[in-house]
This record gives sequence, C-alpha cells and structure tokens, in this order.
Amino acid sequence: MENCIFCKIGNHEIKSEFIYEDENFFIIKDIHPVAKIHYLVIPKKHYARLEGADDELETLRKMLNYVAKNKDALGIGEGYRIIINQGENGGQEVQHLHVHILGGQKLGPKIAHCKHDEK
Amino acid sequence: MENCIFCKIGNHEIKSEFIYEDENFFIIKDIHPVAKIHYLVIPKKHYARLEGADDELETLRKMLNYVAKNKDALGIGEGYRIIINQGENGGQEVQHLHVHILGGQKLGPKIAHCKHDEK
Repeated sequence: MENCIFCKIGNHEIKSEFIYEDENFFIIKDIHPVAKIHYLVIPKKHYARLEGADDELETLRKMLNYVAKNKDALGIGEGYRIIINQGENGGQEVQHLHVHILGGQKLGPKIAHCKHDEK
Repeated sequence: MENCIFCKIGNHEIKSEFIYEDENFFIIKDIHPVAKIHYLVIPKKHYARLEGADDELETLRKMLNYVAKNKDALGIGEGYRIIINQGENGGQEVQHLHVHILGGQKLGPKIAHCKHDEK
C-alpha cells in the first residue's frame, strides 16, 4: 500500500527497531508510549481494518499467539492489555491494522478509566 | 468452572440478556458501560487468560470474526475498540477470558488517553 507508514516499516523501506519479525508480522515500540511497555504488533500485509477475512484473522491469530506465548520474554508477564482501534470513532490513527500491547506496569483495575477517551 | 460468573451466565444458570449466543461464545452488555455501546464477548469454555492454546485462539477468531462481520447490526459500524485485559496488571476483573467491545461514539483520537489508567 503506497504511502502507508506500516507497510514501509514492514518492507524495510523505513528503518525501525524490530522487537520481533517473521514473514507474517512484526513488533515495534510505539513512538508515543502510554505505558512502560507499549508495543505495536503489525501484519506485513496491508489490511485497513479487521473485517473478518480469513487470512486477516489467521494472521491475527498468529500475532496474539506469539504475544501470549512470549509474554515473559516481551517483558509483559504480569498482565497486559490488548487494544485494537477500528476506524475513526475507534481512534485508529494509522489505517493499517495494528494491535497495541500495553504492559510492564499496573494498568488500573477498571477499563472504566478509559472513560477519559470520551468527547 | 465453579463460582465463575461468566460460566454461570454462559450455561444459563444466571439469567442475562444475550445480544448473541451460539455454542462457542455469547455477547452481553457490560453492566458498567464506559461507552454508548459496551459489549462483552465471552467464550463458553472457561479460559482464565489468553495463553495461546489452539482451541482458545480458534474461539477468539470466531468471536472477532462475528463482531467484524456484524458491526453494523451491533450498532458499532462507525468504528470501535477491542480490548482484552490480561491478568491483574492488565486490569482483568473476571478471571474468565472476555473481550470488551466499545463503540457507538467517538472514542478519542489517541489511545494515549488511557494514560489515566496509570497508577
């Protein structure tokens, strides 16, 4: 996808520090972290949103499987939060599907704290 | 799983209003909504956390596929947020895997607003 920052990082057109990379997806640090650990898990293939396509869900499965199996190595062992923002109302900033992984600290007992997101 | 509220709702031991139900998972409204639409998507089988087991990821795939394919019917068509809290640090309140779906409104342009979660 032309002019997509995540496509360019994924195909090494833009240099970035990879936490992990394979043929299906890669993990980088969010440049504006909101927690001690804030990774982005990003499929190499360009999907704008999670639309339920088979290959897209299969990649998502591999991504979440990797995170779950490697949570200690990733430094998020004591609990973490998975967030997928979808579309404008969902706060999706880059139109290439990506999964936020927050961890490395206590994230608050209630999801309700996200109420600050409301406008 | 004994004394698990989500198991009891899933097996109809406790009555609840189902937004959707099949043999693998069900959708209910969060009793403490933090957005106009706040659903919980819950597997019927008891998993404490997302550990990357095959059957668990297959159920998660079905859950996210259902949400993606039915986002208009669910009233979250203009964008939504998927959140999975894992463990104490992640803010997981019920120790039975569940996916929060927030939608029906603008959720804020930045995930950074979740910084209020920090303690």
